[in-house]
Amino acid sequence: MSSKPPRRTTINLERLRRDLEALGRIGRNPLTGGIDRVSFSDADMEGRRFVRGLMEKAGLTVTLDGAGNLSGRWNVGDGPVVMLGSHLDSVPNGGMFDGALGVIAGLECVRSMREMGLTPALPIEVIATAEEEGRFGGMFGSQALAGQVTRKWLETARDDSGTRLFDAMCAQSMDPYEALKAKRPEGSIAAFLELHVEQGPVLHSEKKPVGIVTGISGVFNWTVKLSGEANHSGTTPMNMRRDAFAGLAEFACAIPHLIAENGTGTSRITIGKVSVEPNFPHTVPGAVEFSIVARDMDETVMRALAAGAKSHIAAAATKHGLSFTIDEASWLAPSPCHPDIIAACKRAALKLGLDAPLMPSGAGHDTQTMAAISRAGLIFVPSIGGISHAPEERTEWADIESGANLLLHAAIDLAGLHPQDGDE
Amino acid sequence: MSSKPPRRTTINLERLRRDLEALGRIGRNPLTGGIDRVSFSDADMEGRRFVRGLMEKAGLTVTLDGAGNLSGRWNVGDGPVVMLGSHLDSVPNGGMFDGALGVIAGLECVRSMREMGLTPALPIEVIATAEEEGRFGGMFGSQALAGQVTRKWLETARDDSGTRLFDAMCAQSMDPYEALKAKRPEGSIAAFLELHVEQGPVLHSEKKPVGIVTGISGVFNWTVKLSGEANHSGTTPMNMRRDAFAGLAEFACAIPHLIAENGTGTSRITIGKVSVEPNFPHTVPGAVEFSIVARDMDETVMRALAAGAKSHIAAAATKHGLSFTIDEASWLAPSPCHPDIIAACKRAALKLGLDAPLMPSGAGHDTQTMAAISRAGLIFVPSIGGISHAPEERTEWADIESGANLLLHAAIDLAGLHPQDGDE
Repeated sequence: MSSKPPRRTTINLERLRRDLEALGRIGRNPLTGGIDRVSFSDADMEGRRFVRGLMEKAGLTVTLDGAGNLSGRWNVGDGPVVMLGSHLDSVPNGGMFDGALGVIAGLECVRSMREMGLTPALPIEVIATAEEEGRFGGMFGSQALAGQVTRKWLETARDDSGTRLFDAMCAQSMDPYEALKAKRPEGSIAAFLELHVEQGPVLHSEKKPVGIVTGISGVFNWTVKLSGEANHSGTTPMNMRRDAFAGLAEFACAIPHLIAENGTGTSRITIGKVSVEPNFPHTVPGAVEFSIVARDMDETVMRALAAGAKSHIAAAATKHGLSFTIDEASWLAPSPCHPDIIAACKRAALKLGLDAPLMPSGAGHDTQTMAAISRAGLIFVPSIGGISHAPEERTEWADIESGANLLLHAAIDLAGLHPQDGDE
Repeated sequence: MSSKPPRRTTINLERLRRDLEALGRIGRNPLTGGIDRVSFSDADMEGRRFVRGLMEKAGLTVTLDGAGNLSGRWNVGDGPVVMLGSHLDSVPNGGMFDGALGVIAGLECVRSMREMGLTPALPIEVIATAEEEGRFGGMFGSQALAGQVTRKWLETARDDSGTRLFDAMCAQSMDPYEALKAKRPEGSIAAFLELHVEQGPVLHSEKKPVGIVTGISGVFNWTVKLSGEANHSGTTPMNMRRDAFAGLAEFACAIPHLIAENGTGTSRITIGKVSVEPNFPHTVPGAVEFSIVARDMDETVMRALAAGAKSHIAAAATKHGLSFTIDEASWLAPSPCHPDIIAACKRAALKLGLDAPLMPSGAGHDTQTMAAISRAGLIFVPSIGGISHAPEERTEWADIESGANLLLHAAIDLAGLHPQDGDE
């Protein structure tokens, strides 16, 4: 038996763990154990300073761009970079793996390669993006890299409490307009690869150490209003009602059929927000407003789901004597990962003997933004119990090791090695 | 063709209408046209003073009891009274017919009898009860007549804004403890008969001028909680969800089956109040809490509906991986109208040639309280469009005439006439 691949070219889990745990103490809420590094907060900036120190110690050339993206570059030539990374900001009271794992793992790949004397043919850049969690809407950091940030966005975006993005950046001594200069030149990024926790239950429940993401699902977000007539619950016979909630229930019960008729195994439809009028026990609901969030990896399927949803809503409305309106708040097309990156990940998984299923991502990630300016890909490691955005967010360290090694070998595959070096 | 019955013994619609419209100007909101005579408000007391004047003018012996019930008695002997009436208080921004119609119609019956020289064998009492709409919970006025008001109720009841019943009464120069003396002696009321607007759509949609009420439905009121798991709507596959709202929808869709299996044509089940947690479009609902209000005229049927509801809730919970709790906030048995009163109303309808269907009342009325101390009955007139508790509450005057005449003839039937008088 040979122990070649895992012994020779591997990341150092202990070092990765030590740094990730140290980063996880920055912005930690002492009461909940959750991470509060919301973007452009003091804790977020402290996290960036900590990672800057690690990057410098690893011998990388470090810059912080105008959008707050921290970059550590291993300059081995003039070619386009292979970029490894994720985001450093967190949701309020979030977990210590979300985003941070991808940054520290990217750094660990570079450290391991240097330590093992493996020099890439293309430069490798470790990136820690800013404001991925959408405190101010969108994915500000990676969208700045992609040249998608506008003056209007800079000047008008506010968070839920009304704080302006502009003011939040100024409070950290940043000039917000500098974010407009963060755009990377065309052709300057050969590949972008992100390691992230799944934030869902699939890998954990199927006992898989890693997953190779085929793309970020497209999603549409509707607000639907059904209008009937509010009536006294005692005096109105069942057959004389125009019960808006009964119409909503009818539609909600049709969702499995709707997916069976129009969707795929990875279609997801959720009614997450519901408001009933007048919302009084003794009154037949006169109106309901609810959200529909629907996802699929195929935009044609999304269109079929939308048509099917509209048809089921219309049928429920007719049955219960209701009128309806549908307001499409957003429609985002699926963002497939690049076939070259998926192929590199598959080759790396084969080399490492990892059972790495292909899967869609239902959550948004920097990868989808980076796909606009680079070949881009995403690797998932399991979230225990599917839990994320919470203090209880965890991933087994053995899975983190597998994911980081997959990242390392895919990065080597994508960057190539200098002729004098040899991989295993 | 003879025109005997309608010509000879009939109420005077013009007089009834004039008084009802005058009463409807007391407490009228000039902006909405709605009636604001909430119990023990200045407008409520002004309404009572106005009706006291009408009673005195009609030659009745008038008293205001300690609970605020206004009584005008036609003293023709020592026997138990036939009591005609309803309540004078309103909900906020209510309609001008709710309650007031029954008071003015009762008075009009007495006035018409006197005018026509018809003297009843039993005394007739016109009653205008206090606080039927439940500002302070229950039906304070009629419950005081029935001896159901306690010191504790007097001392602890508050309205939704926190105002104490005790203070509201004192503010009208009433001694709240006097309400304890409002109880009528056993056997002192031979019959109680109330004319009221239906507050539902049945008579209006079936084009009937009046309805004879068989009883007030029993009702149970549940708060149900379904608990599953809140998850990311994008990362959680449909088959790994424990979606609490999907469980609620499943139950709501089963209500028609539940009634078909366990109920009757007059069973009513309503989900009127719903709250979803966390109520965020992108999160699979982790919990829902909702109300169930169920009614039927037969308590055995109510028990079957309750058992069926529990079984359907359990099935929905099992299907969606949820746990559930059911909290029974209240269980009120049906309150049947007295067969003698129903029979008297049927005889009167036959005499008047009125198509008066038998029907349950899904709303509560003073009749149900009075049933504890008297034979009691209730007559409905149509509510246009089923609308009540709103400024738009209306009843056709022709239907009011039919209803008031039915009240008159049923009252004569119940009270009997002095031997010297002859009915038609």
